[in-house]
Amino acid sequence: MHHFTALADVPDLGALLETAEAVSRHPHSTPALGRHKTLGLIFFNPSLRTRLSSQRAAHNLGLDVMVLNAGTEGWALEFGDGAIMDGDKAEHIKDAAAVMGRYCDILGVRTFPGLKDREADYQEEVLEAFKRYAGVPILSLESATRHPLQSLADLITIRMHTPVPKPKVVLTWAPHVRALPQAVPNSFAEWMNGAAAAGQVEFVITHPPGYELAPAFAGSAPIVYDQHKAFEGAHVIYAKNWSSYTDYGKILIQSREWMVTPDKMALTDQAKFMHCLPVRRNVVVADAVIDSPASIILDQAANRVVSCQAVLQHMLMG
Amino acid sequence: MHHFTALADVPDLGALLETAEAVSRHPHSTPALGRHKTLGLIFFNPSLRTRLSSQRAAHNLGLDVMVLNAGTEGWALEFGDGAIMDGDKAEHIKDAAAVMGRYCDILGVRTFPGLKDREADYQEEVLEAFKRYAGVPILSLESATRHPLQSLADLITIRMHTPVPKPKVVLTWAPHVRALPQAVPNSFAEWMNGAAAAGQVEFVITHPPGYELAPAFAGSAPIVYDQHKAFEGAHVIYAKNWSSYTDYGKILIQSREWMVTPDKMALTDQAKFMHCLPVRRNVVVADAVIDSPASIILDQAANRVVSCQAVLQHMLMG
Amino acid sequence: MHHFTALADVPDLGALLETAEAVSRHPHSTPALGRHKTLGLIFFNPSLRTRLSSQRAAHNLGLDVMVLNAGTEGWALEFGDGAIMDGDKAEHIKDAAAVMGRYCDILGVRTFPGLKDREADYQEEVLEAFKRYAGVPILSLESATRHPLQSLADLITIRMHTPVPKPKVVLTWAPHVRALPQAVPNSFAEWMNGAAAAGQVEFVITHPPGYELAPAFAGSAPIVYDQHKAFEGAHVIYAKNWSSYTDYGKILIQSREWMVTPDKMALTDQAKFMHCLPVRRNVVVADAVIDSPASIILDQAANRVVSCQAVLQHMLMG
Repeated sequence: MHHFTALADVPDLGALLETAEAVSRHPHSTPALGRHKTLGLIFFNPSLRTRLSSQRAAHNLGLDVMVLNAGTEGWALEFGDGAIMDGDKAEHIKDAAAVMGRYCDILGVRTFPGLKDREADYQEEVLEAFKRYAGVPILSLESATRHPLQSLADLITIRMHTPVPKPKVVLTWAPHVRALPQAVPNSFAEWMNGAAAAGQVEFVITHPPGYELAPAFAGSAPIVYDQHKAFEGAHVIYAKNWSSYTDYGKILIQSREWMVTPDKMALTDQAKFMHCLPVRRNVVVADAVIDSPASIILDQAANRVVSCQAVLQHMLMG
Repeated sequence: MHHFTALADVPDLGALLETAEAVSRHPHSTPALGRHKTLGLIFFNPSLRTRLSSQRAAHNLGLDVMVLNAGTEGWALEFGDGAIMDGDKAEHIKDAAAVMGRYCDILGVRTFPGLKDREADYQEEVLEAFKRYAGVPILSLESATRHPLQSLADLITIRMHTPVPKPKVVLTWAPHVRALPQAVPNSFAEWMNGAAAAGQVEFVITHPPGYELAPAFAGSAPIVYDQHKAFEGAHVIYAKNWSSYTDYGKILIQSREWMVTPDKMALTDQAKFMHCLPVRRNVVVADAVIDSPASIILDQAANRVVSCQAVLQHMLMG
Repeated sequence: MHHFTALADVPDLGALLETAEAVSRHPHSTPALGRHKTLGLIFFNPSLRTRLSSQRAAHNLGLDVMVLNAGTEGWALEFGDGAIMDGDKAEHIKDAAAVMGRYCDILGVRTFPGLKDREADYQEEVLEAFKRYAGVPILSLESATRHPLQSLADLITIRMHTPVPKPKVVLTWAPHVRALPQAVPNSFAEWMNGAAAAGQVEFVITHPPGYELAPAFAGSAPIVYDQHKAFEGAHVIYAKNWSSYTDYGKILIQSREWMVTPDKMALTDQAKFMHCLPVRRNVVVADAVIDSPASIILDQAANRVVSCQAVLQHMLMG
């Protein structure tokens, strides 16, 4: 595996999942793999889980790590080709990415969408620039439109916790007070549609009208506008807020009617509750659900180390 | 030893001090102890000595380290049980601490009091939440009301520098321009009262009226309101400013009369001068004292590595 | 080698360059040299290349690293001797530097000039305080008036890329929108004057009138005010903006006439183009030059690891 920025970057998902299982059992079995190699982690946005889980994964592999907070520790970057740089941008991404690629063997990049200009966000300017100029494998630590390390952790968690052969997995929109990116639901849909195509899961999306994901991500997953109906018989409830793709970056409704509650969970087939975190309690999901035995959010978070380590391992093996 | 947040967390202080002595002589004798383990350091407040000394201690033990500046690199945390999180707090401490505990084998936490609400500060909301939810040993890097790594370093330093069998140790309040926490004097009193009870030191506190420490920390140590009298015959002068506990968080006097000066040091029995740093020179203590041979502030600071390494070593041994 | 803050700190430049060549070929041949030692990196200013390249160099030598952003993670430092510290400075550099020296085996320090008070800047207050008080070798990560790790990397790059026996190296001033320090051109002139004195290069400086470097740095290098004339027959064009030394910290001209362009490069003897980065494209240099095969900026940046590793290696060998 070279880059890891989307499902399409994974040449053999089965092999990656096998590695993940091995990593989960024996996290320190390949410390020599990272020897004399350095992972650079560049954050254009805040991060807690990704920041810590990727460092831990690197430690487990014997990789050295360098963390750069691009905003506060470095300077503003220019992305325009041919720009006359007489404004506030001190360095072109061409040069910054190329240099970082000379100092690191793998570069992890975290960036968010602006949620103002849909076309710009979906072109993944920052991530693509790193892929183009860095000259080393790029690991997405969440980009404007995808969060594949999260999705891989989600898939590992679902496989670990659903003993039924073809579980019904429901991605449900939930309320929030701020306009959030579509990266997590996009990526989750991308990976679940893949699993559905392979006959491994039944995948359903539920959200209020106006919250349709980009067609490239929603794929052919059935969209159910009635949340109660969608929950019926579910084995996994995956809750997440996102802002509108159609009316780009907007919050269309804020009512708590879409919050995940115990009575809704009662409609499912003893479904597990998942959320990528951070989560607004009693807005996205009731305490009584997230603190219940059905909640597997901590295993899901713990699997962020497993997913990152499996990916790094495949990158190091080339 | 499991947590290390107060003197009461130490099951066998004698054994801890023996480890400290061994560490002081041979800092790299147990590099395998930390192998394949990660120490997470979470800073809710600025830190220089603690930040660097705890990393160095971890290196000496072969531990991997991850540092998180909670304020700038992560996001605001909610502490209220059952809170409807529709405000500016992006994540509940329940979830954040639990997740960090999945990524780290030991979690160090640095937090300060608000100095507005005494009851809240003395309940140690942040530290207690980490102890409750993280699921791994918690190492206090200074909390709202205690700084035990400092106190252990202080005790090690006193043992190293006072050849008399039962030295007179004086904790003296000193002036400052800002309202400071009571954590360092509280903790120092806690540890010195312990040493006094064991007959190892004579412990005296001196400060202006109104600066009495919380009774749980002051214990039965004699309080002398006359600083000159308190200094007489002292072997150790430990200077520190703190804001009022009674008139909570307030600065009651700002006069320089309580500054530690050469003429006051002349009243002692050739006492050593100690301060935890950072120190306001010529406000808390005169240059002529802190720069004199009697000043052992640098050994005291250097012992921060020793104290942290000894504590980590006992944590790793379980 | 003890400190590394200027060319004069290098006892044997030939030996250092030999080490650099060895490091360049086999970066991981001496991992035991740094064992059980910690490099502290203190940043008073933003940094990307220096921050990452020095960490990578340390990894290659098996050194542990601690990074401190002095502004955001620590607190404001006092530099005045005898100051009554009742203002906003929380700690004196005397104490802060001495303590950091107790936690680290080598201290790297990054600091910039204020560009208001020339005498103060050229006294190198911060760097000199660390040299005086830290008690350990100090590695300049760029100071108010010099950037020797950059200059060593530049020298390594020039030796690597100029097959002619005595290349003509031209330092050319170039336009910029902000007032920049003189550290990089000062240091480059210092090192190139050294190489010129040894008969290894011919060194020429070109800039508009009013941009003369401090005499101690310009030395006896010929100054050519006609940029076209200076470029004639050059083998290396080293572009850099700096603010005026005479009219201290001021921008005297902003015209693009001094930008490095393809037609100016055509005047040279197939010169290589160098810049220390970050660079304002199409202000300092045209895209057509920096993106041409003559541009060796990425090798130059990559050699920052080599130069830092060679210096650390000589420091560790004492």
